[in-house]
Amino acid sequence: MTRQSPVTVHDKADPDTVAIRWLGHAVQLLDQRRLPAEEHWLTIEGAAGVAQAIRDMAVRGAPAIGISAAYGVALSARCADESDWQQEVRTAIDQLAESRPTAVNLFWALQRMRGVLDQCQSRTDAVSRLAETAVTIHREDLAANIAMADLAVDAMELKKPCSVLTHCNTGALATGGYGTALGVVRKLHQERLLKRVYADETRPWLQGARLTAWELARDRIPVTLNADGAAAAILAKGDVKWVIVGADRIAANGDVANKIGTYGLAVLARHHKVKFMVVAPASTVDMSVASGRDIPIEERAGDEICQFGGIRVAPEKVDAFNPVFDVTPADLIDLIVTERGVVHTPEMTGMHQLFE
Amino acid sequence: MTRQSPVTVHDKADPDTVAIRWLGHAVQLLDQRRLPAEEHWLTIEGAAGVAQAIRDMAVRGAPAIGISAAYGVALSARCADESDWQQEVRTAIDQLAESRPTAVNLFWALQRMRGVLDQCQSRTDAVSRLAETAVTIHREDLAANIAMADLAVDAMELKKPCSVLTHCNTGALATGGYGTALGVVRKLHQERLLKRVYADETRPWLQGARLTAWELARDRIPVTLNADGAAAAILAKGDVKWVIVGADRIAANGDVANKIGTYGLAVLARHHKVKFMVVAPASTVDMSVASGRDIPIEERAGDEICQFGGIRVAPEKVDAFNPVFDVTPADLIDLIVTERGVVHTPEMTGMHQLFE
Repeated sequence: MTRQSPVTVHDKADPDTVAIRWLGHAVQLLDQRRLPAEEHWLTIEGAAGVAQAIRDMAVRGAPAIGISAAYGVALSARCADESDWQQEVRTAIDQLAESRPTAVNLFWALQRMRGVLDQCQSRTDAVSRLAETAVTIHREDLAANIAMADLAVDAMELKKPCSVLTHCNTGALATGGYGTALGVVRKLHQERLLKRVYADETRPWLQGARLTAWELARDRIPVTLNADGAAAAILAKGDVKWVIVGADRIAANGDVANKIGTYGLAVLARHHKVKFMVVAPASTVDMSVASGRDIPIEERAGDEICQFGGIRVAPEKVDAFNPVFDVTPADLIDLIVTERGVVHTPEMTGMHQLFE
Repeated sequence: MTRQSPVTVHDKADPDTVAIRWLGHAVQLLDQRRLPAEEHWLTIEGAAGVAQAIRDMAVRGAPAIGISAAYGVALSARCADESDWQQEVRTAIDQLAESRPTAVNLFWALQRMRGVLDQCQSRTDAVSRLAETAVTIHREDLAANIAMADLAVDAMELKKPCSVLTHCNTGALATGGYGTALGVVRKLHQERLLKRVYADETRPWLQGARLTAWELARDRIPVTLNADGAAAAILAKGDVKWVIVGADRIAANGDVANKIGTYGLAVLARHHKVKFMVVAPASTVDMSVASGRDIPIEERAGDEICQFGGIRVAPEKVDAFNPVFDVTPADLIDLIVTERGVVHTPEMTGMHQLFE
């Protein structure tokens, strides 16, 4: 098997930070569990390895999960037996679909890969066309992020620089590059419209502390880290004008599933008359789901709360509730920004105009 | 120096969990930084050691800080030089007053000890009277907690069992015993009116995970631990009817300074039509402070957010905002419960009737 250089997805105009590299014979994922302590890349040559990396959160962030899964499907064709390649790729798709339940980008990417698979005439054909499609999904995601940042900054109509607050990690590490909500932050910084971004540390996985602060510090964007519980006090100070978050799935009525804590932030934003914006590619919108009530919400093991870095922080056997996401009702959202356009005060009609 | 057994502050009717023991020649503090991993008692024989234990949060919780400081003053008289004992005790009081800025129980206890000091005729007199006063402060706090729990459960007017949510640790570990908000939880459990208590883990110090879950598990009270960011999703489920918290200082208008995250919870409670109760002894009320704006809010080192158990979780040199408390405005509070009585929908008049 020939060893290849990474396929160029990012050009020189894009930021340096990337979390996913396609080598042709393998996908490389920056292991996000080990940041910021070390930059360790996992090299994965099959779909099962990609599914495990998604399940174990070595890769996370709805768009990055979708892109990784697409590469996983492409790898499955390379590894497949000549006699049974179609079935093997379908099995790989099913396996990848079971890795995590909430982010719809995963199912969207797998659906798109399945559509290409159905048109392939031979394994060789599938190897090349599935790889091409995965790279396209990756490139389109990056392009969507850059487009969304432009749309979002226009829609904010800022007259002067302001501070913003964000939650979890929605940057280059969570996407094909640049970021969704954090792409908007990058663009604001570039346009000299950003005073400071407050980053919720985002328990229990600390994506804000480990990933967002790391990404923004690399790009010299002024960031202040805070405990999730300090967000209300920060909003009360009046300097923050926008809360900007990503999404894992957006329902047809504009309800948004996103990292646990997002819903509370939306309530706090409304209380403080701070605007609340959701930034996500169109692949995050799931028009087959009528409202947030129908979005499956992943619950993970209580140990993610009861332990920290191998140190037990709660007594043995204590019960813990560890939902990974919550649902923010559309009526608490001022803007949903996708690369197709902006939905103001989202509800059924506005969503259908853009996404049906 | 004669070694003595702990002075009996708690009788058999009280729960076993205690955090402060008075030995006559020393005060023992259960080191709360090492829970739940180990129950390590610090034995402290002078005021400087008590001030350090308060500053370093070996003892924490507004009432427990006040009690510990009172014992620190008593110890300073024992250690003082016969020729200069009054000045030495005064210096100890000043030193203790500088240990932490927000909880007013500290200043209240020191003021009371200063009043006794002023009446003492000799060092021997001071040694015995200051120790007696410290024990009295300790016993009164325990009695106040038991009285508040009765008043609070009556005021809740529950027809059937419900779940409640709490923040930080306000139990036996934070007080002279039994607890303030957690005393109410104990009483609800005893009266079979408690389905479950949700405990915010309470970043950055994790008092909920390390202390509240530990205390409640010891007493077999059903507790579920959650990340602070999950509180909104929990309230949205509808099972929680009350949010119950303690206080570090209550202003004359009913504004409450308490652990960072309390204010956000109060906003969330109001949004979900969940009642919000503050439980604190009268020594927490500071009628000299007109509103929450005038309460000094301690900020601690950003490392409390950027590190965890010696492990760095954020990149080097990242800026962090780490306020220890926030202020909940009175208009978000349904009940303030003290041992003197209950203030409904607190405002200036109701507060003055009870506390002037």
